[in-house]
Amino acid sequence: MTAVPQLADIRQVSDGWIKKYVLAYDMPDGSRYEYESASRKALDAYRAELEGNARGMRTPADAVCIVGQTADGKLLLIREFRYPLNSWCIAFPAGLMEPGEDLATCVNRELREETGYGLRTDLDEAAALQPLPQAGYSSTGLTDETVHVVFAQVERISDAQPEPAELIEPFQLAIEDVPRFLAENETPIGTRAQLVLEAFARRH
Amino acid sequence: MTAVPQLADIRQVSDGWIKKYVLAYDMPDGSRYEYESASRKALDAYRAELEGNARGMRTPADAVCIVGQTADGKLLLIREFRYPLNSWCIAFPAGLMEPGEDLATCVNRELREETGYGLRTDLDEAAALQPLPQAGYSSTGLTDETVHVVFAQVERISDAQPEPAELIEPFQLAIEDVPRFLAENETPIGTRAQLVLEAFARRH
Repeated sequence: MTAVPQLADIRQVSDGWIKKYVLAYDMPDGSRYEYESASRKALDAYRAELEGNARGMRTPADAVCIVGQTADGKLLLIREFRYPLNSWCIAFPAGLMEPGEDLATCVNRELREETGYGLRTDLDEAAALQPLPQAGYSSTGLTDETVHVVFAQVERISDAQPEPAELIEPFQLAIEDVPRFLAENETPIGTRAQLVLEAFARRH
Repeated sequence: MTAVPQLADIRQVSDGWIKKYVLAYDMPDGSRYEYESASRKALDAYRAELEGNARGMRTPADAVCIVGQTADGKLLLIREFRYPLNSWCIAFPAGLMEPGEDLATCVNRELREETGYGLRTDLDEAAALQPLPQAGYSSTGLTDETVHVVFAQVERISDAQPEPAELIEPFQLAIEDVPRFLAENETPIGTRAQLVLEAFARRH
């Protein structure tokens, strides 16, 4: 393996819901290199994560993204008003994991809040919830954010219970309508929703 | 359509390669709501993008992600040292678009720099380069970053020409090896690479 940069310093330059950091690395050629990063983690947690990553340790995913399918084979999607875009956006239901929360609990909580759905209760958890083998990084040049994509068998349970500032419209999409949806959609779309829908379109 | 929040103010709170903004919205119930956002765009460009989004206008993608396939059907991937993670990461070749650059030019430049590959010259551009119908948002709760995923037929052209601080190891992966790769991989992976590889694995 190539010699790797050694993390020498982490400096927090902006606090808030999104923190901004300047990371300093000692490069293999002896030079010092600085790189900016955005994270939701506080300084100590981010430092621990970075030091752990260098040793092959993994921190829990920051968020889940739920590819839900109903018993009649329809995909459960949302249109959500996304403030960083000033626009509605197409996505799968998703949200931040709470500390110590396991995947199934988080999936049920986010589905319930955003759509009024939950994992099917007539299936055991292994059949109702199939996570990908690892979480994926959203944008590795910009942030340490990881999102665990899970496939889920879902059913309607209650009304949606969004937070006051969460503007969310759930909708269902039949698998056979996915190719037309992708070709005609002009609303901004999250990269995960787009790629999962493309996979369904190409399998269909 | 539901009444939407109206963008009232954009305040830049951190400058640099990554900028941080506080966006203020007037909500349908008359309250004021603030939301933080990270962007590579300067204040004027970000304001124009947000105002345009509200009118259904789209700004060009920030970056491309290139799902390259060689003539013998292998996928072209990279391991790249990613500073915000302090770790190697599996991904498809990707990079920021330069102002005014078209997709094909950007794809050829990024492929050449990161891997020494380029679009196949024995095919016309429509056969060698197949972009998804729109760019996708990396993480809509955090940033306005968009990445346009393109499928590309590629060939080796030269040695890779990375920037000094770009530590990149290209590798090829046969389609039939994708399921095993995904099951066994323990290196951090970008969400786009993971979802595209999952699609190949499920088609195989």
